[in-house]
Amino acid sequence: MKIDFNLNKLCIHTITTKPLGFEDACARYAALGVKGISIWRDAVAGLDSKTVSDCLKKNDLSPVAYVRGGFFPALEAEKREAAIEDNIRMLQEASELEIPLLVLVCGAEPKQSLQKSRDQIKEGIETLLPVARKYNVKMAIEPLHPMYADTRSAITSLKQANEMAEHFNDDLLGVAIDVYHLWFDDDLEAQIKRCGKNDNLYAYHICDWNVPTTDFLLDRGLMGEGCIPLKQIRGWVEEAGFRGFNEVEIFSEKFWAEDQDEFLDKIVDAYLNHS
Amino acid sequence: MKIDFNLNKLCIHTITTKPLGFEDACARYAALGVKGISIWRDAVAGLDSKTVSDCLKKNDLSPVAYVRGGFFPALEAEKREAAIEDNIRMLQEASELEIPLLVLVCGAEPKQSLQKSRDQIKEGIETLLPVARKYNVKMAIEPLHPMYADTRSAITSLKQANEMAEHFNDDLLGVAIDVYHLWFDDDLEAQIKRCGKNDNLYAYHICDWNVPTTDFLLDRGLMGEGCIPLKQIRGWVEEAGFRGFNEVEIFSEKFWAEDQDEFLDKIVDAYLNHS
Repeated sequence: MKIDFNLNKLCIHTITTKPLGFEDACARYAALGVKGISIWRDAVAGLDSKTVSDCLKKNDLSPVAYVRGGFFPALEAEKREAAIEDNIRMLQEASELEIPLLVLVCGAEPKQSLQKSRDQIKEGIETLLPVARKYNVKMAIEPLHPMYADTRSAITSLKQANEMAEHFNDDLLGVAIDVYHLWFDDDLEAQIKRCGKNDNLYAYHICDWNVPTTDFLLDRGLMGEGCIPLKQIRGWVEEAGFRGFNEVEIFSEKFWAEDQDEFLDKIVDAYLNHS
Repeated sequence: MKIDFNLNKLCIHTITTKPLGFEDACARYAALGVKGISIWRDAVAGLDSKTVSDCLKKNDLSPVAYVRGGFFPALEAEKREAAIEDNIRMLQEASELEIPLLVLVCGAEPKQSLQKSRDQIKEGIETLLPVARKYNVKMAIEPLHPMYADTRSAITSLKQANEMAEHFNDDLLGVAIDVYHLWFDDDLEAQIKRCGKNDNLYAYHICDWNVPTTDFLLDRGLMGEGCIPLKQIRGWVEEAGFRGFNEVEIFSEKFWAEDQDEFLDKIVDAYLNHS
């Protein structure tokens, strides 16, 4: 496929092409003209930071986000402290890899109230902010779909993420907007505007909602395959001042079973035509 | 099991014990002291209304709701008209069966915007209200979980259901609150209060959210098994003035595969101890 310079704002999450090793993924993204990469921790586990940095430079790829910190809530104080320790390590790793942003999937503990989990998320972020400053790595709260409210995120709306970011009002803390989690929200346009106005719109993730969806986690669709009004939401995000990458984050058993070069071609086509 | 008179407010949806025939279900609910039954259309298909009414009287069961009308949105006008015709038949059937309430699962069409689907829902309800008046059958808008926003309901929050009911401000139109769809909403307490204040709180459905949940539709939990704060929500509902039945609505392949008498014993126990 010929390099398409309209891909300057296209970023792919390594998990999207999970079967590919990190260096292989970088080479294939670059060959298509993709300019950004969001790096899942697993994808670079075992690689030293120089190998990762060299690979990014060689392929002219900008590291966009390190994925994923968070998971702060727990019943026991020791578990909460362990989560914070792990987030500190991720900030350090992001710094070493020169990745500017850590995405926070904030977590939830089903044996306690969502409010209690949100309080623990707040405590976790408060503890991490000085560390983020030390390493000069930003953090983005990612609100998740309410179907993940049991164990993955007590922050289930952009409104809640905005409130949390505004509470801290820190230039190292913002929000990651993922269409999968928020597309149905009738308050979405207003909350995106609010997010931008407060300089909290740090990241924009795209994929689609399959109709029907057959798995709670691993059946995300390619842009254009489902029912998410992607162009409308992108319009709102850009009107809110966002100028960063469009990050393709697709967890899909179906696509992972396919030839990854063919899948990457589909991603580029879907990005250009349906997002 | 001995009859427990604390079961006066317990209602069971026929689909909860799907393997049982209607008359069998009635007899078994009554034997446990259950006083209410919500009747799914399938459960009484093929039975004449006298058989149904006699069965309810014999077992001293109050019919609580007829389930489920709605599904108004469609791309084609003919399909929308067909949906309205079907809802008219359901209102007539409810009247014949002396069921006071029709539950509306409002529907959504993934090929159009949620707002467009909500407009079509509004048109459908507007057309049905005179029919509901003629038959003296109330209707309850049931907001569904956002994970059903693609095809089942463009009304995904209690706020939206309240707004729709308040728009019509009609004593035949209210809201059905199902904990499964709304438990995570940080605005839930306020919206329940609003619903009650406007005399729109027509029905209260209970079950639980399994952790993990393995199926989008058929893995609902028994009260106490999951993470929904059932007693807290029931408190809000009762503070809002609701004095109707607590309707157990559980779709579960797991429980449907069990002995239904054992399952009914579990329901009674869960209702008394965890809801």
